[in-house]
Amino acid sequence: MLVAGAAALDKVGAMRILILGGDGYLGWPTAMRFSARGHEVFIVDNFSRRRWHHEHSTDSLTPIASLGERIEAWREVTGRNIQAMIGNIDDGEFLDQVVADVMPEAVVHYGEQPSAPYSMISRRHAVNTQQTNVIGTLNLLFSLRDRVPDCHLVKLGTMGEYGTPNIDIEEGFIEIEHKGRKDTLPYPKLPGSIYHLSKVHDSHNIHFACRVWGLRATDLNQGVVYGIETPEAKLDERLLTRFDYDEAFGTALNRFCVQAVVGRPLTVYGVGGQTRGFLNIVDTLQCVELTAENPAGAGEYRVFNQFTETFTVSELAEKVRHAGAELGIKVTIDSVQNPRFEAEEHYYNPVHTKLPSLGLQPTLLSENLIESTLGVIERYRDRVISDVIAPSTQWRPAPPVGQPAS
Amino acid sequence: MLVAGAAALDKVGAMRILILGGDGYLGWPTAMRFSARGHEVFIVDNFSRRRWHHEHSTDSLTPIASLGERIEAWREVTGRNIQAMIGNIDDGEFLDQVVADVMPEAVVHYGEQPSAPYSMISRRHAVNTQQTNVIGTLNLLFSLRDRVPDCHLVKLGTMGEYGTPNIDIEEGFIEIEHKGRKDTLPYPKLPGSIYHLSKVHDSHNIHFACRVWGLRATDLNQGVVYGIETPEAKLDERLLTRFDYDEAFGTALNRFCVQAVVGRPLTVYGVGGQTRGFLNIVDTLQCVELTAENPAGAGEYRVFNQFTETFTVSELAEKVRHAGAELGIKVTIDSVQNPRFEAEEHYYNPVHTKLPSLGLQPTLLSENLIESTLGVIERYRDRVISDVIAPSTQWRPAPPVGQPAS
Repeated sequence: MLVAGAAALDKVGAMRILILGGDGYLGWPTAMRFSARGHEVFIVDNFSRRRWHHEHSTDSLTPIASLGERIEAWREVTGRNIQAMIGNIDDGEFLDQVVADVMPEAVVHYGEQPSAPYSMISRRHAVNTQQTNVIGTLNLLFSLRDRVPDCHLVKLGTMGEYGTPNIDIEEGFIEIEHKGRKDTLPYPKLPGSIYHLSKVHDSHNIHFACRVWGLRATDLNQGVVYGIETPEAKLDERLLTRFDYDEAFGTALNRFCVQAVVGRPLTVYGVGGQTRGFLNIVDTLQCVELTAENPAGAGEYRVFNQFTETFTVSELAEKVRHAGAELGIKVTIDSVQNPRFEAEEHYYNPVHTKLPSLGLQPTLLSENLIESTLGVIERYRDRVISDVIAPSTQWRPAPPVGQPAS
Repeated sequence: MLVAGAAALDKVGAMRILILGGDGYLGWPTAMRFSARGHEVFIVDNFSRRRWHHEHSTDSLTPIASLGERIEAWREVTGRNIQAMIGNIDDGEFLDQVVADVMPEAVVHYGEQPSAPYSMISRRHAVNTQQTNVIGTLNLLFSLRDRVPDCHLVKLGTMGEYGTPNIDIEEGFIEIEHKGRKDTLPYPKLPGSIYHLSKVHDSHNIHFACRVWGLRATDLNQGVVYGIETPEAKLDERLLTRFDYDEAFGTALNRFCVQAVVGRPLTVYGVGGQTRGFLNIVDTLQCVELTAENPAGAGEYRVFNQFTETFTVSELAEKVRHAGAELGIKVTIDSVQNPRFEAEEHYYNPVHTKLPSLGLQPTLLSENLIESTLGVIERYRDRVISDVIAPSTQWRPAPPVGQPAS
């Protein structure tokens, strides 16, 4: 019904949309969403997430279909086509050919290595992360400039770019009064991992491309996403998106829910006072859609802080404990040594008004929602690999032999 | 005499110093300076600058010796050894082996692609620049962490990281009062080219390594360097450093002096009101030496704004005209269309007190100094290739066929 209703939009403002990372946790549901709305959708992916899981003998909780099966199932269920092109975006020749072939009106860019712990495993992982993300995005900016300078770039950034400063976090820019003069400048960044740094680098590169080349871009500084189900994915089991709960790619709430279902203690890092912005996966789709429908102007670089609520990690754990109790699951909470280098209690007040002003209607985190997530996880509990959830990557590895710890 | 005098310092605080980019315009004079002072000096270079000149049929104004000849001449003249290792720092295995072998107490890092116009030539040049600079520096940070966490990193940044904000530029950090709260945060950056962006990315990566891994680093945000002669280079003609005047690698004053000697108009970009910080090459050596002698603390990331005076581009051109007149050279000044995207008139007031407080004694730009530079250039005027001085790389290339200019 959703798809039938959406078909009516076909004639109004249908766009050619290129989704980088379109096989991923958010990329695939985004592809379906835009396709359902009648847009012409093209996907690029290099299956890096699937490959990483092979390397580490981990897997998505949900049994996901291959990209070919997903696209075929989507066609069967909706009659709509999604086209996929396989390759690496840090291969500039490949990406440029894709952009030249597709000539997109909007690019939604999820095509990055998205895990902070992964980026901190070793030098090789750090270099791969900044290489994929920074060079990939740089390649994209040149192809947009040379092929489709009017295209709107919708880039996924992260709230983690800001860190936890002792002042309110604005949306990308801040007016500074200093020694009797004023200017509005990029908001200072204190990223907390090699991955978060890569997103800060991207932001500077994209801002430059807008200032100097007149490109249009919206940088979505997203909070932590939770949830599995989207309306399109519910149409057929083959359309399910991935759901990661491992140390590297699982986000906090998703990880807690899996721990609850399999009877493991929820692993809160340190005192658990770390406050972050969160949003439901259905709100990610809503935000990306609202952004694409309301493009940035020529030469404009916009930053939207994309989350709906803030919680401390301890609050999240408590919510899962309560929801579990409702379902008769006894949930325990463990404080484990924090593998990260971060403030465990801090001021946190990020502004997030731009997406609501475009019409975002948040789906807030309710106990019902957690219960329903626990229910979905219960369906796949036989697939859970329990020993990959606890953190092993340390932000500060042991010092080399013969050197004192700093 | 300088070398004999310096030999007395051998026993006091001699360090193992690794100089990345030690074959370059500043790297080679820096290597000689530290060697003259009795430090144990190791050089890494990949000859990228020499290679680029081969590719473009350009050359240094000064006839520079090969690195092997330089090192041999230095040994002949001073009895001191400098060791060289050839390779790319974006090859992490190579760099890690170098750091493990040398176990440096200080690393002076000039090993980057340093030209804004070069970085703007094409996507390939842009990617090479960010690849070499960002990945090279990231590799270095990991090797420092794993091999010599107490080593002091002296990193060459650029004043161009800041751009030209409408408020005073501080040294790396700024206290911001916002909505009734305060914090001291990284100074916001508005870099003006792909090259300048790479330095901003480096700054964020280095700051992180200091915060999280406890490394020590000083980021020298250097202004535009001019001049040829240093005391050590004067000892023997084979010790001369390179002097670039071409569009890509020649800095403003050096380029103007060459244009004056060969009777070409000085090419001022646009109205010439662009204000920048400048310093003499002998002050670069003094600043790097002062910094190495006064290392950052464990976990400290310091930023020094490294320049001695500010001038507009038009002021520089006028100074060259006056100095030329004294020598009987008639110098004309042309305003050419600005190839860059930059404000041609703007507020500019950068703080630069940290290096003077360590003891920097500036060698300011005098008419005598320009006359002496013109004299050195005159010696090599037969080597000047005049048609590579004018700008050809545009910050905003022509739009693709069928697209309007933005």
